[in-house]
Amino acid sequence: MSRPIAVIGGTGPAGMGLALRWARAGEAVIIGSRDASRAQAAADAIRQRVSGQGQVSGLENAVACAASDLLVLTVPFAGQAELLKQLKPAIRAGSVLIDATVALAASVGGRASRTLGVWQGSAAQQAAELAPKGVSVAAAFHNLSAEVLNGDEDVDCDVIVCSDDPNATQAAMALAATIPGARAIDGGKLENARVLEQITALLIGLNMGHKGHSGLRITGLPEVAYRKTG
Amino acid sequence: MSRPIAVIGGTGPAGMGLALRWARAGEAVIIGSRDASRAQAAADAIRQRVSGQGQVSGLENAVACAASDLLVLTVPFAGQAELLKQLKPAIRAGSVLIDATVALAASVGGRASRTLGVWQGSAAQQAAELAPKGVSVAAAFHNLSAEVLNGDEDVDCDVIVCSDDPNATQAAMALAATIPGARAIDGGKLENARVLEQITALLIGLNMGHKGHSGLRITGLPEVAYRKTG
Repeated sequence: MSRPIAVIGGTGPAGMGLALRWARAGEAVIIGSRDASRAQAAADAIRQRVSGQGQVSGLENAVACAASDLLVLTVPFAGQAELLKQLKPAIRAGSVLIDATVALAASVGGRASRTLGVWQGSAAQQAAELAPKGVSVAAAFHNLSAEVLNGDEDVDCDVIVCSDDPNATQAAMALAATIPGARAIDGGKLENARVLEQITALLIGLNMGHKGHSGLRITGLPEVAYRKTG
Repeated sequence: MSRPIAVIGGTGPAGMGLALRWARAGEAVIIGSRDASRAQAAADAIRQRVSGQGQVSGLENAVACAASDLLVLTVPFAGQAELLKQLKPAIRAGSVLIDATVALAASVGGRASRTLGVWQGSAAQQAAELAPKGVSVAAAFHNLSAEVLNGDEDVDCDVIVCSDDPNATQAAMALAATIPGARAIDGGKLENARVLEQITALLIGLNMGHKGHSGLRITGLPEVAYRKTG
């Protein structure tokens, strides 16, 4: 990317794993957190793991938004709406916001293998409703195992990207294609994010039932449908 | 299988494709249809394609139910509930009913890349509610491309099976594992069928967007989680 990637709510396992992969790919990454010192500690941990590759910094979420126009939101569903309302003044017009939120029932004390119904259709569509005007939202990265992302091996999973804005789709697909092993696939409109989110619940259920770190591959599409590294 | 497989509503593309694969695997298959002569014509067509392997017959749906205790339901969602109500007296106690129905919005004139909400959670759960007492329901086979099933090549897709009854899960997994290329995976409770059904809508959308016959593979589970031929 020519611009830094701000991972908002980036100190959790999913955000840390994505940030690690992007730092390894030589991208400039900003970890955002409610707490600037937690963000800096997370950035330090990633810098250590990539031993000098990439630039990684840690900033309070609103400051991170102000510093980048490429935002990746990796927060638990319980905090998504409130955080987006708080960040509304800080998010720059013209930003791309990539939402990876999954409305797991675990957000309200239920099971991580079940989802909640979201009035807008999906957490990503809720994000689109709450984002400032002029911000494009894409849904992506829901199905990558945080455990695998935080490890050293290539991921064995496709990243399906859904958005109503081709620019946001392209930005998310380009980010996905920097992760070794991942293939990015254009999954059509943002409304399809509801399926991506539900797949995460299924994969979590498979992980619990079979003790694995599952992912998914889409088969049967022409080669041109898959964007990947190299 | 030691028993014949009755494919109820089996003259459509999905039912024909599954019946073809099971006939090729040497299974005894009964094609069920509202119209016995259509069922027989479909059975004839499959017999020709497998050139004598397997036993394939065609029967009216209720007669097919009476002749087998292993039923696979492959009907459009618009006809599922009514058909199950009609067949209730004919379905034998102790039968396993494997439901492959997807509540596509196309059922009511909408898009095949969208699903309808089903009060019970999924078409499979609706089937479980409508099936006679003592009948075990599993959800499976939603994500296999009918085009691929009706061809000659191995499928490139996993079959996730969801059921509340381990016997039904086992029966569906055994059936899936007879299809070359398919791997059967226990997907947990029947309630998870809602995700399988939604994945079908996503795959249909991918097919429309990219001109393919998509399927999916689950990665990252221990080898023992996958049951396959050979």
